[in-house]
Amino acid sequence: MTRHAFDPLERDAVYRAIRERRDMRHFAAGEVPEEQLLRLLQAAHQAPSVGLMQPWRFVRITRQALRESIHQLVEQERLETARALGEREDEFMRLKVEGVLSCAELLVAALPPGREVHVFGRRTMPDMDLASVACAIQNLWLAARAEGLGLGWVSLFDPQALADLLALPTGARPVAVLCLGPVDAFYSRPMLEQEHWTEARPLADMLFTDQWEER
Amino acid sequence: MTRHAFDPLERDAVYRAIRERRDMRHFAAGEVPEEQLLRLLQAAHQAPSVGLMQPWRFVRITRQALRESIHQLVEQERLETARALGEREDEFMRLKVEGVLSCAELLVAALPPGREVHVFGRRTMPDMDLASVACAIQNLWLAARAEGLGLGWVSLFDPQALADLLALPTGARPVAVLCLGPVDAFYSRPMLEQEHWTEARPLADMLFTDQWEER
Repeated sequence: MTRHAFDPLERDAVYRAIRERRDMRHFAAGEVPEEQLLRLLQAAHQAPSVGLMQPWRFVRITRQALRESIHQLVEQERLETARALGEREDEFMRLKVEGVLSCAELLVAALPPGREVHVFGRRTMPDMDLASVACAIQNLWLAARAEGLGLGWVSLFDPQALADLLALPTGARPVAVLCLGPVDAFYSRPMLEQEHWTEARPLADMLFTDQWEER
Repeated sequence: MTRHAFDPLERDAVYRAIRERRDMRHFAAGEVPEEQLLRLLQAAHQAPSVGLMQPWRFVRITRQALRESIHQLVEQERLETARALGEREDEFMRLKVEGVLSCAELLVAALPPGREVHVFGRRTMPDMDLASVACAIQNLWLAARAEGLGLGWVSLFDPQALADLLALPTGARPVAVLCLGPVDAFYSRPMLEQEHWTEARPLADMLFTDQWEER
């Protein structure tokens, strides 16, 4: 065991959260208590960020009318996506791809304006800010799993339309509609596998040594 | 306590990994056993991905000459970044920003070619693939912390030069140089705070209700 390692029970708990986390679209009734929501957001806020720029902003949606408007945006993009998928259109339309109206809490994660002043770690790869927000969302996701709450990351929307809806300033950009809340059950496998939309590939396909290899 | 919640000790372990994870640049001697490295990569591989596209590829660097070439690329970009920072150039040059030569294991995370066929969740936001890779890296980071190993995400490099070095096919793109290995100690706070490069802002600054608010 490496120095600084967690004890085995703690270590297993971290691996359990990683293994049992799911992208949820089915939610149950119930609420997320305020202090629990803050714990989850604090977990997000402890994410790494490029040059410590902390480029995550979270808009908590509390107005029902606003939630319904967001749902409409997602529904519009669901139809656009179905059309773009061509021969898989009908199959896609049968999938449940979001739980915007049924989740206990709805959050929108966004990049703030003014990111261009952050050069450290972004001179050649400015989109490292998005990577940082994704790390924050992954923290939130794992913490939510440990708390027994489901989370779904919805990226089916027109970002400009959502930015307008939330009065985001020029230069800000929404990157996730996050559905959070109690669930009846976590999927035992990723839902897109369960529904035979696609098959996950094994890790071995993703690993190379010293250079790219044709697979 | 919510149904499906981990027991309190497990839950605390997840929060501990999130809280104690650091972006490491100082590494100690020692190795990462093969089976431990695979556990960490398996944790990465259990990340969520847009449309289950699993867009992460990991190149393990085993040749010392290749590691040195990667270090040179990072060093070149470190100098370019310092110049771009203008009045903070000298201050930046005093920071330790990577541990490429001293870490036990060096990995490059990359996006594969051919991503354009994945439309689900990416029609309006194609960079959700990068977000998925970032989630995978965050999984790896947290698992490494639980195992007592440090990880640093270096984004100081010219992506095309690194792609050439690793013979990445057209359309693939490296997004992270990952330094992994034993450390003498984890920073008690983010290193860029400890070194007074910048101050982290509190969570409250990142939270809004229903719409953007001027802060």
